[in-house]
Amino acid sequence: MPANEEQSCGGQFRDVRQRGFYDRASVEQATAWIDARGGTLAAEVVTVADAVGRVLASPVQAKADLPLFDCVTADGYALRSGETIGTGDYNPLLLAIQDADSPLLPTSAALVAAGMPLPGGADAVLPFEALRAGGSSLEVCRAVAQGVGVERKGQQLSAGTTILDNARIVHQRHLGLLLASGIEHLKVVRRPRVRLVIAGPKLGVKHHGPDVDGPMLSALIARDGGLVESVVNRAERREVICRAVNAPGADIILVVGRTGTGADDQAPLAIAEIGELAIHGVALRPAGSTGLGLVAGVPVVLIPGEPLACFCCYELFAGRLVRRMGARAPEFPHAVREAEVRRKIVSVVGLVDLCQVRFVDGGVEPIGSAESGGLAAAVRADGFVVIPAPLEGIAPGARINVHVY
Amino acid sequence: MPANEEQSCGGQFRDVRQRGFYDRASVEQATAWIDARGGTLAAEVVTVADAVGRVLASPVQAKADLPLFDCVTADGYALRSGETIGTGDYNPLLLAIQDADSPLLPTSAALVAAGMPLPGGADAVLPFEALRAGGSSLEVCRAVAQGVGVERKGQQLSAGTTILDNARIVHQRHLGLLLASGIEHLKVVRRPRVRLVIAGPKLGVKHHGPDVDGPMLSALIARDGGLVESVVNRAERREVICRAVNAPGADIILVVGRTGTGADDQAPLAIAEIGELAIHGVALRPAGSTGLGLVAGVPVVLIPGEPLACFCCYELFAGRLVRRMGARAPEFPHAVREAEVRRKIVSVVGLVDLCQVRFVDGGVEPIGSAESGGLAAAVRADGFVVIPAPLEGIAPGARINVHVY
Repeated sequence: MPANEEQSCGGQFRDVRQRGFYDRASVEQATAWIDARGGTLAAEVVTVADAVGRVLASPVQAKADLPLFDCVTADGYALRSGETIGTGDYNPLLLAIQDADSPLLPTSAALVAAGMPLPGGADAVLPFEALRAGGSSLEVCRAVAQGVGVERKGQQLSAGTTILDNARIVHQRHLGLLLASGIEHLKVVRRPRVRLVIAGPKLGVKHHGPDVDGPMLSALIARDGGLVESVVNRAERREVICRAVNAPGADIILVVGRTGTGADDQAPLAIAEIGELAIHGVALRPAGSTGLGLVAGVPVVLIPGEPLACFCCYELFAGRLVRRMGARAPEFPHAVREAEVRRKIVSVVGLVDLCQVRFVDGGVEPIGSAESGGLAAAVRADGFVVIPAPLEGIAPGARINVHVY
Repeated sequence: MPANEEQSCGGQFRDVRQRGFYDRASVEQATAWIDARGGTLAAEVVTVADAVGRVLASPVQAKADLPLFDCVTADGYALRSGETIGTGDYNPLLLAIQDADSPLLPTSAALVAAGMPLPGGADAVLPFEALRAGGSSLEVCRAVAQGVGVERKGQQLSAGTTILDNARIVHQRHLGLLLASGIEHLKVVRRPRVRLVIAGPKLGVKHHGPDVDGPMLSALIARDGGLVESVVNRAERREVICRAVNAPGADIILVVGRTGTGADDQAPLAIAEIGELAIHGVALRPAGSTGLGLVAGVPVVLIPGEPLACFCCYELFAGRLVRRMGARAPEFPHAVREAEVRRKIVSVVGLVDLCQVRFVDGGVEPIGSAESGGLAAAVRADGFVVIPAPLEGIAPGARINVHVY
């Protein structure tokens, strides 16, 4: 049996190199570890325009009434609605046209435009289509109801009203209302800063380079509201991994590649050397060599380098940490759709399987197994299903939840 | 009747200021105008890492086989599966350990790691968990099936295979496969460059400033894959609007505010003066003063300044143009969910109503009418419904499609 370097590691650590995983954590244990460490980050202040997609760190109250004053909402003539009762084509009402700046005199109307303050005494605005104007007088040929073309002070929103609750994600359509009600800045949850340490492919192997997983992970981190703090490429040796993980400045560190049982799978040893490797090996396909640890209080996820395993490990574990710290819903960020299984989905008892599937005739069928097809299967897939560890598969005719890409 | 300035405008143009809209286009006519002008833009080349969220301008084929060679996918010992037939705990197989660089000799095995080329002659890899290694020989205690732990050249993907079809939106999970199959650059549809010309609120009115609609529209344009080319603020006078619209460099121009029937609603006159104002006034609530025109071949949308009208006009018309030019699905970019109406949704015969609604007990109810509540209603809403022009409303119990925010 080859010699293993256990001297530098804590008592709990077990070097799996050239031995294999004899004892894997369950997906539930790994998830619980993530959830215990994924506390919401502190708040920061941003401008309203920069807040789209961010998560609110406190509820938002209107600073001002909206509208700020009794307000005209249509172009036309402001008048007293009561004076128009009984008016019609054969019984027109003649009103004197006056200035909009002074209160309305009896049987008078004032030319107004949407957005202006409503002249005192007026309670409705008649649009141009409904009247005949000529020189200094106006002929009204129909009755108008009180409040038409008018919005009262605070009618949309009064100062102090909660516009958005805590933890809401700011949407494009919120911006107009926030700005209109006097709000210029918002308190939002800080974006998790994620460091990528690309431990790279096996030495001398060009199967998938450092540039395969890195761009994919960067895009997934951005989707989940995280910020890529830095990317350390070619961290192939243990000392380089240690140095990259030890540097301050990140909220989460993802070490990508070199997580398995090969001789140069140094990532688990590096974490055990400088921190605590809590979990190495999860009963999961793909991504069974996933690791979780803490270095100087910062959670570290060891992500397998094989691209499909990297993708699945991110979606299940690393992404959950990013989403939790950023105060987003921790679950998979995909829509869920129930579908009937059309062709047996094969699984292995004792392992959670993530299977790529596609929709066929309203049902769903697997694309390869959890271990075959690689990322090519995930690209052809419409989504994936999670097969619980106790099952050896899902039979045709059963209904299953599909996480839709 | 006040004098109207028609002298500077084309024959078709009708000045609605202080007269009103007597003749509005239907939503269908306005949509058809948009669709006839929203041709897909040309392609540009970007790196794979920058392509997430972009629309492909041509199909993408794998440049190389994936994997590039017969490849090991597990850490362990490569061997001939045929030699393990009949092997068990009471009938172990002894294999000599040899180098992985030379072809496998009979009854031999070679130490390999995932990602390495498969040694010649080997057809399976046994993980460390399934064997006992000692010095120069290996004890195999179980049979292994052919192909386990092995991926054949081109098994995931062969060179020339289409990975992604034309017009697909590039997803985070596509990046790994694209890079692994030798692709570094992609041809994507150019982002529509959108100019915002903020014609501003009515003169002297502070109800909603230039900074209310602008940031909201910028965020919506980004959501739809457009680029804000420039923002021209305080374009209040007709000459300023004309100059801002006439400048080259934009694929789409949105003039925001001053679209109505008030004396200083100069935006329609500006477009009629320097181009063609095809439509002004749409049978729609809100956003009835929407305008559509062409200046030097560039489509111009006149967007009402009132924030809810601005939002609805963008979603229906301006956004459709952005989405079309960028080769995205032109429809509303919201999920659609059918729901039962719980409380009557009031509408006006002859106008399409966009009503803000919220979900209650699995059904749906209106928040204000299409004309009341402003953007505050849209912020409280879970989505909106579109009531066709011929209907005077939707009765309780009817089922309706909700566009979910």
